[in-house]
Amino acid sequence: MEALIIHAPGDLRVEEVPTPGTLPHQLKVRVRCGGICGSDLHYYQHGGFGTVRIQQPMILGHEVSGVIEAVGSGVTGFTVGERVAVSPSHPCGQCRYCQQGLQNHCLDMRYFGSAMRMPHVQGAFRQELVVDATQAHRLAASVSDAVGALAEPLSVALHAVRRAGPLVGQNVLVTGCGPIGALLVVAARRAGATHITVTDVANAPLRSAEKVGADEALNVADDPAALARHEADKGHFDVLFEASGNERALAGAFAALRPRGVIVQVGLGGNMTLPINTIVAKEFDLRGAFRFHEEFATAVTLLNKGLADVKPLISATLPYRDAGRAFALAADRSQAMKVVLDFS
Amino acid sequence: MEALIIHAPGDLRVEEVPTPGTLPHQLKVRVRCGGICGSDLHYYQHGGFGTVRIQQPMILGHEVSGVIEAVGSGVTGFTVGERVAVSPSHPCGQCRYCQQGLQNHCLDMRYFGSAMRMPHVQGAFRQELVVDATQAHRLAASVSDAVGALAEPLSVALHAVRRAGPLVGQNVLVTGCGPIGALLVVAARRAGATHITVTDVANAPLRSAEKVGADEALNVADDPAALARHEADKGHFDVLFEASGNERALAGAFAALRPRGVIVQVGLGGNMTLPINTIVAKEFDLRGAFRFHEEFATAVTLLNKGLADVKPLISATLPYRDAGRAFALAADRSQAMKVVLDFS
Amino acid sequence: MEALIIHAPGDLRVEEVPTPGTLPHQLKVRVRCGGICGSDLHYYQHGGFGTVRIQQPMILGHEVSGVIEAVGSGVTGFTVGERVAVSPSHPCGQCRYCQQGLQNHCLDMRYFGSAMRMPHVQGAFRQELVVDATQAHRLAASVSDAVGALAEPLSVALHAVRRAGPLVGQNVLVTGCGPIGALLVVAARRAGATHITVTDVANAPLRSAEKVGADEALNVADDPAALARHEADKGHFDVLFEASGNERALAGAFAALRPRGVIVQVGLGGNMTLPINTIVAKEFDLRGAFRFHEEFATAVTLLNKGLADVKPLISATLPYRDAGRAFALAADRSQAMKVVLDFS
Amino acid sequence: MEALIIHAPGDLRVEEVPTPGTLPHQLKVRVRCGGICGSDLHYYQHGGFGTVRIQQPMILGHEVSGVIEAVGSGVTGFTVGERVAVSPSHPCGQCRYCQQGLQNHCLDMRYFGSAMRMPHVQGAFRQELVVDATQAHRLAASVSDAVGALAEPLSVALHAVRRAGPLVGQNVLVTGCGPIGALLVVAARRAGATHITVTDVANAPLRSAEKVGADEALNVADDPAALARHEADKGHFDVLFEASGNERALAGAFAALRPRGVIVQVGLGGNMTLPINTIVAKEFDLRGAFRFHEEFATAVTLLNKGLADVKPLISATLPYRDAGRAFALAADRSQAMKVVLDFS
Repeated sequence: MEALIIHAPGDLRVEEVPTPGTLPHQLKVRVRCGGICGSDLHYYQHGGFGTVRIQQPMILGHEVSGVIEAVGSGVTGFTVGERVAVSPSHPCGQCRYCQQGLQNHCLDMRYFGSAMRMPHVQGAFRQELVVDATQAHRLAASVSDAVGALAEPLSVALHAVRRAGPLVGQNVLVTGCGPIGALLVVAARRAGATHITVTDVANAPLRSAEKVGADEALNVADDPAALARHEADKGHFDVLFEASGNERALAGAFAALRPRGVIVQVGLGGNMTLPINTIVAKEFDLRGAFRFHEEFATAVTLLNKGLADVKPLISATLPYRDAGRAFALAADRSQAMKVVLDFS
Repeated sequence: MEALIIHAPGDLRVEEVPTPGTLPHQLKVRVRCGGICGSDLHYYQHGGFGTVRIQQPMILGHEVSGVIEAVGSGVTGFTVGERVAVSPSHPCGQCRYCQQGLQNHCLDMRYFGSAMRMPHVQGAFRQELVVDATQAHRLAASVSDAVGALAEPLSVALHAVRRAGPLVGQNVLVTGCGPIGALLVVAARRAGATHITVTDVANAPLRSAEKVGADEALNVADDPAALARHEADKGHFDVLFEASGNERALAGAFAALRPRGVIVQVGLGGNMTLPINTIVAKEFDLRGAFRFHEEFATAVTLLNKGLADVKPLISATLPYRDAGRAFALAADRSQAMKVVLDFS
Repeated sequence: MEALIIHAPGDLRVEEVPTPGTLPHQLKVRVRCGGICGSDLHYYQHGGFGTVRIQQPMILGHEVSGVIEAVGSGVTGFTVGERVAVSPSHPCGQCRYCQQGLQNHCLDMRYFGSAMRMPHVQGAFRQELVVDATQAHRLAASVSDAVGALAEPLSVALHAVRRAGPLVGQNVLVTGCGPIGALLVVAARRAGATHITVTDVANAPLRSAEKVGADEALNVADDPAALARHEADKGHFDVLFEASGNERALAGAFAALRPRGVIVQVGLGGNMTLPINTIVAKEFDLRGAFRFHEEFATAVTLLNKGLADVKPLISATLPYRDAGRAFALAADRSQAMKVVLDFS
Repeated sequence: MEALIIHAPGDLRVEEVPTPGTLPHQLKVRVRCGGICGSDLHYYQHGGFGTVRIQQPMILGHEVSGVIEAVGSGVTGFTVGERVAVSPSHPCGQCRYCQQGLQNHCLDMRYFGSAMRMPHVQGAFRQELVVDATQAHRLAASVSDAVGALAEPLSVALHAVRRAGPLVGQNVLVTGCGPIGALLVVAARRAGATHITVTDVANAPLRSAEKVGADEALNVADDPAALARHEADKGHFDVLFEASGNERALAGAFAALRPRGVIVQVGLGGNMTLPINTIVAKEFDLRGAFRFHEEFATAVTLLNKGLADVKPLISATLPYRDAGRAFALAADRSQAMKVVLDFS
């Protein structure tokens, strides 16, 4: 079979790789669609992010859907031909954190297409994928392969929402409207937020956020003081989801966030310089949100039941052999939100 | 003006009462619609509930909407002619509990149409109502007067949902499908519940619950073991909203509720005999939910933005002069969910 | 070796049983002390409790300390001769609940001396015990064998305290002053409770509770209205630990418990008839507390560091061959709080 | 009467000021002791901190105890001659945040000796003080005037502990061992922490922290890698109280803090540059803690009952007329922890 393998920044190749055998607890999945994530782009453009660097050739990709081709002898509940979304996350189940129900902090995590450990965990941008049966989640007929591939980033947004606590009746601010920011709008609305404002420095992503339900979209490049209207009485917003990874976005929202406001930091962004006195005096609660665990099943259920509509976020679907073009498009925020590769 | 005054069980009269003056911090509201609540029915049928009894004539009603007729000299933000939903709740703001943000436990609460204190607090089933400006919440043009009157029971459901904690991705069971049970379906879905089962002993309310989004509706009179399908692995449901006030409904759900499951008890029901060992061994968390506070504003916002659809629950709208017929209809579960009185 | 085996109510025998081999992940412990628990008493007096019944001969006991006699080949961190408290709890680590960090709800729990499953899990009142290394917790030299045996019931109390949430500055009521009630006084004080009232129907246990720090001890048999002094302004207590398993104790405390008060139900007691309207109207939060998991390590640390003093609760230490006398003493609340068996 | 008035950096004068009258809801208190706080030092040394600057002469001080001299006609529950600790905090009770029980975020807060608003709120370093009766808390005979003056900083520590959530069985790290850091050791222990490590860049404060119960005291100036021993398995500590206001202390603790670890930021410190990716990937929860509200009553109760021992933290008590010497001593970390002024 063929796979998309990153060798070095800018050097992404379609190469032949062997299909591994299917163990008793595993499923073999014929991949149909794979979404390009910001981290895939970072590997492609820069060879990694932060301290994480590609040190050996690695198959990219961790947002995929497909069809079951073979079922391991010990697996029940799946049959050949069923369509599934595949979670890229495979925690060990044994370590201190798994035993506390914090599988996203597993000491021995295997996560598709990640260079965080050596040897790297190979990714899912390939024609055939062998996974633990627990990683597969059945898709309803109403959910397209491309939408199914978005179960993974939707899980990230749902996990961030879960970190925020109850949102019913809350005023929510989302800074940064890439795919995760836009999915945070979907997830926050699903969780009951009554008002959602989004900010970005570009108009195209703001329009996408409006399409999936944002009440207000502010371009803070055009008007750096756009949030000032929400600063009365120590601030309007109850919750901030920071999805840009930009310190100006984070600190710039402090005056509009009420005392005891919750900040969920989702965006990665290296060092940030922050006015710690404001965090103290307004007693903010700044929480990191990283990947997901049980939220993958929730994401698939929401898609299956039509309780979350992510379709407006799919900008284009291209054949995996056009990966170069697809990655270029995914990198252009004025053109694309989520770009999906077609492996069928 | 005229008002609906209960004198004794079954003795509900339309009588002329004087309109009070409007103080500087108050609004005068011409009432348009008023929903008949279970407690109104209890006053009408039995003269009260539990230890609460009518001891003097009392105007009924606490679920109303109307139009502003006069604005007190000290009130800003409202103008004559605006349509509003009116919260029946008027806490003192000074007592120990108000100062803790627990206004629904105010030591000096004034709640429309309640015989809990002497003299009773007169209710809102009248042509004109004078209220504190904080009790009024503007309705959008898209929200009818009748739907606006449902802001109050929706607030009760939202408060119960808030008591439950985050519901995103949760499996929810609602026992009892009267108006509050049905509104709990609406509120739980809005809060992100992915599966909602409802039970009742009658079919008509179950059909209403399905209309507002329940995934599964079980008649436990027809099949007392209907929940057994959800009892594997110590139970399927994460959260139970008990809205029937019936001990069989509550205890009957224990086997289908997972360990650490949350039970929000909304229904009132006198003494209940419960298997306390199950509560201990499964570490349930049984929480009372009583009235609401900030949830009234949330309810109106959800209605104004079209984020909660309660219209299917309005069975009929009758003139207030036909109160007898309206109350009889409201008491007939095979015919009616929510019955609204028209005061215009 | 010898063990204490219950055959039928009142039929407790000292019998010879074989010592099992020590597997690579296990430790062999020479038991020194074992505390008699209320459930041991129930097996002895009534053959069980609730629906749990002895259906085959079973070694009793689950509160023990001892000395390591042999260390499995795969175990690190222990050496022969070290003194340990032994947790009776051995969850599977694999099931749905273990993977959520809720090991006390394990679907395949093995808990020493419990007839909840068939075949029963044999207990720890024996001379030699083979346990998983994770069940052993080193005791400091300052902690006696008898005190070490109390790590288990202290864990139960700590788990109940954890279920209650933060206690710093809280007014706490403990109903029922058996060993668990008295240990709840110790644990609640350790957690920062500023006022602790205890109630019981007998004076001896109340005196014990005072010895370990209760601020106020009320005999509600002598004065059924003793709590009335705490009922002003809807109630004085923030948290109630119900350790008697008696419905009068539970319901009798409602008027003295403030709105939003937390009730942690620890005592087992069959069916209880409760005024559900009070739970609703005061929005109580009634939480079951069952056994423990990580709290065992906490209990041993508190004992090792002298941060919890449970010594005043040990009424007597008797040789295991005098088990009949020891069980009779343990059953006499006017004479005994915790009775410890000496296996050395 | 005389008061200590700051006119400019370094310009602190003993001056005569008039005693205000006592209104019906007020008490007049003859001040006996006043603790010098870090913020008093900042006003004295630099004229303020952050953006807060002295713009008019201001009486310093907010940590005081004294004796009631006069009782307003409307006050019940106090008599002349009683000794009290006085809370410097006087929220409005009416605003949005007061009505949510978040009085420390009051929109119209009056806090003794604070230049945060104009005109400044005059402080409590004076011979006579008129306060709202709600600000006074009776001291037990066993509590000295000097210890009573520490109720205020103990409240700050208790509030920070409350922000951290339950501490029973937790491993706690405190960075920065000034008076607040040391009181955090006392408060965290009272709340059930089983292990407490403290760090500082000076030895004297570390010794003080050990005197009040720290298990381990590390000088990170002498050994910048001192915390490395706690970094295995993604980190040992469950909770970090950051009391230094130093970004190296905060970021330097990240590797020793477990995933989902809670950071309570108490120290003020201008801008801090932080590795946000670590906060995200380890899902830290960084919470500001600012002043206190109900914790003042808790602090006094803990002191009255002997449940918190703060006496070892009082370095010296000097007459208020020696304020210059007292402030110099308070500023010398090698000599002093808490310096108290004697106003009697």
